[in-house]
Formats: sequence, structure tokens, C-alpha cells
Amino acid sequence: MDRKFLYLSFDDVNRVNLTMKEVIAAVEAGFTEMGHGRAEMPPKNAIHPGAGGDNYIHGMPCYIPAMKSAGVKWVAGYPGNLQKGLPYNTGLLALNDVEDGVVYALMDCRWITTKRTGAASAISAKYLARPESSTIAVIACGVQGHSNLEAMSEAFKLQKVRAYDPLPAQAEKLVAYARSLGLEAEATEGAEKAVRGADIVVSSGPIFKQPYDAVREGWMEEGAFASLVDFDSSWSRAALAQADKWTTDNIGQYRHYQDLGYFQNCPEIYGELGEIVVGQKKGRETAQERTFAANLGLALDDMAVAPLIYAKAKEMGVGVWLPL
Amino acid sequence: MDRKFLYLSFDDVNRVNLTMKEVIAAVEAGFTEMGHGRAEMPPKNAIHPGAGGDNYIHGMPCYIPAMKSAGVKWVAGYPGNLQKGLPYNTGLLALNDVEDGVVYALMDCRWITTKRTGAASAISAKYLARPESSTIAVIACGVQGHSNLEAMSEAFKLQKVRAYDPLPAQAEKLVAYARSLGLEAEATEGAEKAVRGADIVVSSGPIFKQPYDAVREGWMEEGAFASLVDFDSSWSRAALAQADKWTTDNIGQYRHYQDLGYFQNCPEIYGELGEIVVGQKKGRETAQERTFAANLGLALDDMAVAPLIYAKAKEMGVGVWLPL
Repeated sequence: MDRKFLYLSFDDVNRVNLTMKEVIAAVEAGFTEMGHGRAEMPPKNAIHPGAGGDNYIHGMPCYIPAMKSAGVKWVAGYPGNLQKGLPYNTGLLALNDVEDGVVYALMDCRWITTKRTGAASAISAKYLARPESSTIAVIACGVQGHSNLEAMSEAFKLQKVRAYDPLPAQAEKLVAYARSLGLEAEATEGAEKAVRGADIVVSSGPIFKQPYDAVREGWMEEGAFASLVDFDSSWSRAALAQADKWTTDNIGQYRHYQDLGYFQNCPEIYGELGEIVVGQKKGRETAQERTFAANLGLALDDMAVAPLIYAKAKEMGVGVWLPL
Repeated sequence: MDRKFLYLSFDDVNRVNLTMKEVIAAVEAGFTEMGHGRAEMPPKNAIHPGAGGDNYIHGMPCYIPAMKSAGVKWVAGYPGNLQKGLPYNTGLLALNDVEDGVVYALMDCRWITTKRTGAASAISAKYLARPESSTIAVIACGVQGHSNLEAMSEAFKLQKVRAYDPLPAQAEKLVAYARSLGLEAEATEGAEKAVRGADIVVSSGPIFKQPYDAVREGWMEEGAFASLVDFDSSWSRAALAQADKWTTDNIGQYRHYQDLGYFQNCPEIYGELGEIVVGQKKGRETAQERTFAANLGLALDDMAVAPLIYAKAKEMGVGVWLPL
């Protein structure tokens, strides 16, 4: 077999550097396909190597016929890596020719994992936040805090950013980033000062089975929207009970995480993002509703974006072609 | 992150060329771990791109702690590829550092898929065939016919090979290969002449949901062993009903295939290969039993072998190091 594939390292994918606008459009198109039942996405499968039990490596395949996109993301999450100077998430993503199954592209999956997660939040916000939302609170200001802010600033005319992080230096990094986007920004003392008055709240800390109540009842305003990138980890049950609409990106996967011990005593699910995007379920209906997205991150997000990275890399001459 | 991984193309893996003896030893060690409940192997997950519905791409992860082996095989099976001059199976296999989850090796998965499948048959035969087995029948003489013959000739003092294939040229290829191994070999007219008198039978044709009765009741001798690399596709139900012991490599996966429509009206499962290898279940107990292995092919097989390929490639200086 005389076939080659294009390999893109982390640096290569960064060089390709799709815009957040392109990523959001691609992921939304993916959810449109999913909403119409036109995507094949089996459950992730996982192994858990090493000590401690918190490590995972997930196999995340998806096939989106309309996009001629089929492939898998093989992504590791190792909490202990940060102390070793290694990223929490590492891994690869492969794309297969839908006609003959042969791999034609392989890329480091860190860029896509970061960006598509922010993009999915922004798509949820597009349907669930008030269109005039201008103030955003970011609770925990790491990689996902940055990506979510970037995506939200693409989807909304943001003016003010309030950044809270238990490590003040992290919050200051996000403040600096927000200012580089032309936004007014401040780090707050405590999460409450960030959340009160915000139109959009993003919580993007580490994921724990045992939530730690960083955000409490009564802080989130009427009419606000929250994206819980860290699942339910940083919200008190009473704060979540204020939800008028509690959504996720995939109900099957949400139930699976419930079986694993996450999302205990959370509100009943109102609908899936794909259903909302295609109009089978309504998004926000009143200016008063408190709306939530607890998106889990899907192979669908990845496979909607990856072919665009490949196409642009090919056009730019980035990456290396390798024989199979 | 300043980390690289070793990429091995199909040609590279062929250059490494582990011996079948090494592959059998590694796969048997894998089944020992599995038999003791010390391997983590979630179910395959699958997508089915393209037209026709027979195509699959499987995500096959496995973690074997004792071997410090963790990774995934991402393997496509496209029946239409043969007509396009492409292999039925194509794909990649990734190995992850168990301590930090970072990928350290990636290889074309065709060599390993071919060889470990033959090896698993030979391991089943080691426990289920008569030790003095000397005559083998191979029904359908493609890639797996060759690999199974190679593995069986490693595990037994074979003398005679009877090759049957609906395409006589295919059978002649296997005959030539058998002679190159120093064995007496003939192509037979019809499957019956191959199966009657054989101590070991391997059926290795294409896999169909609707079996086609290539091997019938009364042909398989008392005391013979059969490895059904093509599932139950080429055996009549009455022929299978003669089984005294009907085994598989993984009961969970076997049930899954039953749910998909394979293995209908087959004998009850006696045991799993891992159980037999570690002695929790007995292998052959009398010289008269007809014993069967319907092995499905597991990620365990792949992950038991792949680290050896990596280690030898590194030692030989084969492959190319790529930045993540």
C-alpha cells in the first residue's frame, strides 16, 4: 500500500492556528449534525494506568458523514503531570479516509482539545445566554479559563471580565489576556465578587467527584448563564438548584459520568446542545431564566474541527508526510 | 513539552520482524495477566463510515500493568478495499508511558494484527489440541491462513498441511509457504478432504453473519482441535454441535458479537483462554474430545506484543523520532 499521512506536531497545529471563529462555526455545524441524528459517536472507552486512580486515557471516536470526517482522539489526562512540568492532557488525533478507512492525518491533540472546549461553551451561550451579555466571570483561570474567554469574546460583545482563581497569579494572567483582547478586566477577591453581577459565568477548575462549593446559592444573577467546564465540581448543590434550564452536550455520556459518581444531586436535564442548536428544544425563553451548560467534551467537537486543521496545514505546507 | 515518539511504518515493523516464537510468548504472557484479572481492557468502540454498512473502525485500548504496556489500536476493516488493491485492515497503534500518559511509540498495525492472531490460535491449541498433533487443515488460505500455519508450526511438530481455498491459487500459495517451512503439503479438492484426518483445523476465511457451512458434521475427527479465526462463518451448526469444549478469548466481547448477530446457535462457552492458561479451567482432558477456540482478537494481544516491537526497533535504530 503506497499511502502517506500528514503528521502535525503541537507546534505545527499552533502554526496552522485556526481562528476561534472558525472553530466555533465548525463545532456548531457538528452539533447541527448531531441534533439531526446524523453523527455516529460511540461512548468513550478508557484505561487508567499508573498509580492513584485519577489518570485516564480515553479513546474518543466519531464519524460525521456530512463533513466526511471520521477518526479518533486518544487523549490522556494525568493530574500529576502538572507537578512534573508536563501538560495535564496529552495525546494524538487520527483522521481516516471515509471511503477506505486509511489514516490520512495525525495530529497532537492539545490545541484542538483546548479550543473546541471553549467553542462548545460559546455555542451553548449563544442559545442560552442573553444576547446582550457583556460581563463575564471566570472562576479558575487556567488553560480553559483562557479558551472560554476567547470563545465568549468571539460570540458576545463583552466589556468586563472578572477573574477569580485561588492562585492570584493565575487570575492576573487571565486579566492580562483579557486586556490584550481590549476588555476591561479585574481579579477579584473570592468567587462571589466575580459571579455577582455577571451575565456569563465560566467555571473551569479541576474536575473532582466531590464538589467544593466555590460558587454558592444566590450569587448567580437572574438571567445569567453559566458554563461548567469543570462539571459540577465548583458549585454548591443549592446554587445549582437555582437552574431554570440545565443542559449538557450529550445525555448518554452525562448518565455515564453520573454512574461514575459525578453530577450527583444536580438538576434534571432539560436538553442536549444538539437538540437546542437545531431547534428541537428551545434555548433561553425569558430574560429572567438562570441557564446552565454542563458540557462534557465530545469526540464530535474534535472531529468537526480536525479536518479544517488538516486542510489548512496542507495548504500552508505545514507538517511532515509519513509512509504508512 | 519536549517529548518525542518513535514512528514505525509497515516497512519498519517488518524490518524489526519479531519471531513468531517471541509473539506467541508475549501473547501468552498477556493471557496469563488477563487470567489473573490483571489487565484492563474496555470493550472496543466502533464507527462505521462509508457506504454498505460492512466497514468498521475499532478503537481497542488495553492496559497490562505487569508489562508496563498501555495503548490503543485504531484499526479499520473495509471489505471493499481488496478490490481497490488496498489491505482489508489498516491502522495505527499507539503506546503510552504509563507514568505520565505521553505517547512514546506509534506504529502501523498490520504486522501485529496478522501475527498476534495466529499466535492466539497457537496458544489455544497448546492447551486444547493433542500435544502430538501433526496434521493441520487450513480452510481459506489468505493472510490469516499463513499466520496461523506459521504459529502452529512453531507450537507443534507438524508434518502435513492440507490447504483448501475456494480459489485454488490461494491454496497453492499456502502449499508453497508450508513447503518453505519444511512441511509436506497438498491442496485439497473441497474442505472435507482437508478436514478429515486432521489433528488441527484452522478456518480463516472472511467473517459473515450468515454462516455458509464449508465444514460439515462428521468431518472433524475425534480428538481434533479447531481454531475459528473467521468466527463461526464457515461451520455448519451440526458440525459445531460436536464440540466437547467451546472456548473464546473474551466472554464479554463474545456476548457483544452475539448481540450483533454472530455466533447464533453455537455451543455454550466452556471457558476463556486466560482462565485456561492460568489453570482456572482445564484445557484438553481426554484424547477423544473435540475442542474449539473461537478467538475474537483482543487489544490485549496487541498491547502484549507492541512494546517488544518498540524495544527492538529502538535497539536496531529503525523508525523515525517525531516531536509531539
